[in-house]
Amino acid sequence: MDPIAAFEQSVLADIPLARAMQLRVHGHGADELVLAAPLAPNVNDKGCAFGGSLGSLLTLAGWGLIVLHLRAHATPCEVYVQDSQMRYLAPVWDDFLAHARLVDGESWQAFDATLVARGRARARVHCRVPLADGTDACTLEARFVAIAKR
Amino acid sequence: MDPIAAFEQSVLADIPLARAMQLRVHGHGADELVLAAPLAPNVNDKGCAFGGSLGSLLTLAGWGLIVLHLRAHATPCEVYVQDSQMRYLAPVWDDFLAHARLVDGESWQAFDATLVARGRARARVHCRVPLADGTDACTLEARFVAIAKR
Repeated sequence: MDPIAAFEQSVLADIPLARAMQLRVHGHGADELVLAAPLAPNVNDKGCAFGGSLGSLLTLAGWGLIVLHLRAHATPCEVYVQDSQMRYLAPVWDDFLAHARLVDGESWQAFDATLVARGRARARVHCRVPLADGTDACTLEARFVAIAKR
Repeated sequence: MDPIAAFEQSVLADIPLARAMQLRVHGHGADELVLAAPLAPNVNDKGCAFGGSLGSLLTLAGWGLIVLHLRAHATPCEVYVQDSQMRYLAPVWDDFLAHARLVDGESWQAFDATLVARGRARARVHCRVPLADGTDACTLEARFVAIAKR
């Protein structure tokens, strides 16, 4: 199975809330992971996207970016989120995407070198849900740690 | 119906993800709202609580604290989360509670006065999921805005 399909399948199998959100992988490149969720199972009392759904999809996008990088490089690790800052800028009235990439100034080369040297490494990820006009509906900056399995 | 039962029922009716999480109101006083969720529907790939579930319950606890205050004072408002900072300190291996209260230095008196004067008011809320020993498994500090309905 291709790694993206395997990732989507494992997230849906392991995380009940991802199933409830109807999470899908929308796209993946070397530098970005994009997850998707429909609005209907993720609405709030106002009929727009629930903040908890937005935060969950953004956090999973950042986590998945690192998990997929590690799988491609055959480094068995557990990946944990450590902290995050979220900004809600505009309501989301439609199905939505969460884009995740490393923050400017971070590199996979430095991450990989630290992981080899110390058995653990941190990465900071910037995630966003764009509106149709390209502006951000919400953003999340989060720090993750990968710990090599012994 | 008592206001706490009505709040729980409306959250479960309006927010599908709250149903998926099996959210319940655990307790409510003048200064604190405590929500509860079982572990099983909220696990991650490691078998402990999913960060998205923790963040969602914490955010709903903060939001609910303000909504219940406004309902008790008969002020029809919409309440939105604006931003939040979350820290994940220790994994959660059991059913969990999310406690929400105003941050130190904020008061309902000031909040209510601003809402009357301007038709909107902000409140900062501190939320936490405690472990059995009383230490924090995770914390969330969030800013909400209440906007009076015309």
